[in-house]
Amino acid sequence: MGQRLGAEMFGTFWLVLGGCGSAVLAAGFPQLGIGFAGVSLAFGLTVLTMAYAIGHISGCHLNPAVSVGLTVAGRFPVRDLAPYIVAQVIGGILGAYVLYVIASGSPTFELGGFATNGFGDQSPGHYSMMAALVCEVVMTFFFLFVILGATDSRAPAGFAPIAIGLCLTLIHLISIPVTNTSVNPARSTGPALFVGGAAVEQLWLFWVAPIIGAIIAGVVYPLLTGAKKRALASA
Amino acid sequence: MGQRLGAEMFGTFWLVLGGCGSAVLAAGFPQLGIGFAGVSLAFGLTVLTMAYAIGHISGCHLNPAVSVGLTVAGRFPVRDLAPYIVAQVIGGILGAYVLYVIASGSPTFELGGFATNGFGDQSPGHYSMMAALVCEVVMTFFFLFVILGATDSRAPAGFAPIAIGLCLTLIHLISIPVTNTSVNPARSTGPALFVGGAAVEQLWLFWVAPIIGAIIAGVVYPLLTGAKKRALASA
Amino acid sequence: MGQRLGAEMFGTFWLVLGGCGSAVLAAGFPQLGIGFAGVSLAFGLTVLTMAYAIGHISGCHLNPAVSVGLTVAGRFPVRDLAPYIVAQVIGGILGAYVLYVIASGSPTFELGGFATNGFGDQSPGHYSMMAALVCEVVMTFFFLFVILGATDSRAPAGFAPIAIGLCLTLIHLISIPVTNTSVNPARSTGPALFVGGAAVEQLWLFWVAPIIGAIIAGVVYPLLTGAKKRALASA
Amino acid sequence: MGQRLGAEMFGTFWLVLGGCGSAVLAAGFPQLGIGFAGVSLAFGLTVLTMAYAIGHISGCHLNPAVSVGLTVAGRFPVRDLAPYIVAQVIGGILGAYVLYVIASGSPTFELGGFATNGFGDQSPGHYSMMAALVCEVVMTFFFLFVILGATDSRAPAGFAPIAIGLCLTLIHLISIPVTNTSVNPARSTGPALFVGGAAVEQLWLFWVAPIIGAIIAGVVYPLLTGAKKRALASA
Repeated sequence: MGQRLGAEMFGTFWLVLGGCGSAVLAAGFPQLGIGFAGVSLAFGLTVLTMAYAIGHISGCHLNPAVSVGLTVAGRFPVRDLAPYIVAQVIGGILGAYVLYVIASGSPTFELGGFATNGFGDQSPGHYSMMAALVCEVVMTFFFLFVILGATDSRAPAGFAPIAIGLCLTLIHLISIPVTNTSVNPARSTGPALFVGGAAVEQLWLFWVAPIIGAIIAGVVYPLLTGAKKRALASA
Repeated sequence: MGQRLGAEMFGTFWLVLGGCGSAVLAAGFPQLGIGFAGVSLAFGLTVLTMAYAIGHISGCHLNPAVSVGLTVAGRFPVRDLAPYIVAQVIGGILGAYVLYVIASGSPTFELGGFATNGFGDQSPGHYSMMAALVCEVVMTFFFLFVILGATDSRAPAGFAPIAIGLCLTLIHLISIPVTNTSVNPARSTGPALFVGGAAVEQLWLFWVAPIIGAIIAGVVYPLLTGAKKRALASA
Repeated sequence: MGQRLGAEMFGTFWLVLGGCGSAVLAAGFPQLGIGFAGVSLAFGLTVLTMAYAIGHISGCHLNPAVSVGLTVAGRFPVRDLAPYIVAQVIGGILGAYVLYVIASGSPTFELGGFATNGFGDQSPGHYSMMAALVCEVVMTFFFLFVILGATDSRAPAGFAPIAIGLCLTLIHLISIPVTNTSVNPARSTGPALFVGGAAVEQLWLFWVAPIIGAIIAGVVYPLLTGAKKRALASA
Repeated sequence: MGQRLGAEMFGTFWLVLGGCGSAVLAAGFPQLGIGFAGVSLAFGLTVLTMAYAIGHISGCHLNPAVSVGLTVAGRFPVRDLAPYIVAQVIGGILGAYVLYVIASGSPTFELGGFATNGFGDQSPGHYSMMAALVCEVVMTFFFLFVILGATDSRAPAGFAPIAIGLCLTLIHLISIPVTNTSVNPARSTGPALFVGGAAVEQLWLFWVAPIIGAIIAGVVYPLLTGAKKRALASA
């Protein structure tokens, strides 16, 4: 169990350092920088790379909403849920810390948004709280839907990390303008603790919405695939 | 059958929400936004991710032209064609609806083109109706050609979702300037119903052209691969 | 044999229509357009998609230099070389023709460079003939090196189309500024015939350089991998 | 052994020519050029393509830090370490040389940074030496972590080149602003020898930091995965 929690911690560390890091460090290069598409690719590749690296150790959730959704779908034991989430949040905070150390080595460093998630004035496109809520619920629903499908025993083996990683890229391509894209409470928590203020005040949404979306997917996917009984039994 | 239709509906929902959503939501960020390349990637990834998630349930067509082309090639039963197409169109409309809900949460929201397809004045590059028709026929022909080839029993197993998803990305990289890229009547129908006017008036082309291209591919591919008899028998 | 040649023709058609088409059609959108990176991705994806679609029919060469390099390495019979090259060139010309039909449907259409290859004044960055020659030889050498390696019986099965397609993307990321990137005489010939003038006068280099690079790789790779005898026997 | 060293030399040649080349040659096209994201993709694809091409010959390290990390983790024999590193450095220098030959064929050629790595005034974002050191150590740590995980016997076979190549893309998406991204002493050495001055004076950091990161990963990964004994035995 210690090895699995260590893997989740390192993996979520990498997700936050890599995904948020690509956004924070490139911000000084508006012309040659990587833009939203590059940040989207970076987030997806953190998951793709880690899924091949530690999928065989911990399952590579890296995300409390993923652990919750897999539990609801009957794929993950309830007793492991709390320790996984703790390891993920610690990893996310450590990733944000190392990003802070590197980013503050720039002579023009300002903390700014530090890749936090938000709605209203904290949303990149100033989207309303309701739009943010709907967006995060729906995006996390489809994220879990793809995770459950791609790791289904009937799906081709070995390809799940590609499907899941690139699904996270896709989700960022869609929703960075709305909330800066969370679908992952651990990813939201890390940077928010360094920024404080509104980032922390709005943090609740990025726990509630992804977990709601994940629960719905954990119920719907098994119904859709004839794995209904197992899902009902575990729900 | 209900599960298969549910899968097609969710999948086409995701295709329209993800593909059109990436274009609509990023439109407010011309500098950092994802541009045509990011939108191309998003459309392709909706198919790649869903093909791994539901390929083993419904075959993951997500597109009336795909269902028609597979039927002509003898790979899909005629009796399932109508229900699949209905499920796909419903999914496309629901996807456009949820996109509308999210997008309208922006303080500067205007419906605008809403990622509809078009020709003439409705084409991004004001291409003529004839250019649009040729483009959609040829693009859908090659889309079906790649689908039929990559799912051929002699092609390496498991890779078809990568080939097919990235083929849709490629098709968008080429043809967004011409028609905003359809190759999929369900994808065109969803947003058009919200925009109305010229978008609906031109909708016929994005049913006719993709289906013609798909039928040609459904005839040509089997001829090219020695599977001629089966194709003739089913045509 | 007719089926194999048909597959090569359709495949090279797709390579030219898709790769050159992405460049030609996006040229009217400098802000939102796909840039060199999008064109690079498009060229690579034409090969990736076709390799999954027709790899099991014809081997999916789509390129006279590839056919020559495989012949030198002892992987392709000499007697099939000429018909393959003819089919590829015909496919390239047809692809350029359909691109012309679509592109000329724009109200602001000008033929311009039409994605032809060139050096000196015809090079995107005005690179010298010598730089263009070195660049095309070296790029084609590595292209064939990767093709020979990824299709080696000891390489993991099924992944070659990804390696080869993305290798062509990489080659374009590097060398579009120098020659607009050929590494493929059939790809160069199609558009050049429509543009005429300097594009045709310089066409010789895009036959000579890729074939030299391919021959070198066809000799070097087998030496490097202990398959020396077979290579020497067939050279 | 000669074949394996030849493969490492060609592979590292390709890494430097392709990765640095994409940056150097595109520099003259700020509008249509590929930007940091394109350069990131190019570096990753050099490794992805070569890993499929020569993975079965030499293991495709292409990087002294990779060879060191694999040795510490007990996956590579100590006696092969020095010859591999020499072959990699020679390949990197030759790749930089051919890039110089091509690049100098431009009428507006200036050597400039020539894609060298650096900190302080030589860093793209003028990051401090300490930030550069932390960044290179952490990035190389995760690079080796992913390499060790994706090539673990329990990871799905055949996918490691995708995971490792795209991990290098991700690392560049994050850290080009900080050091222009090394994580590879051979990649840093090649261009530095052509530029001289500060590029050579700072070269020590791009040997020390990647190797430290690689050693830590070589110790940590086996501990995390229950392969502790083997690692301790070989360390």
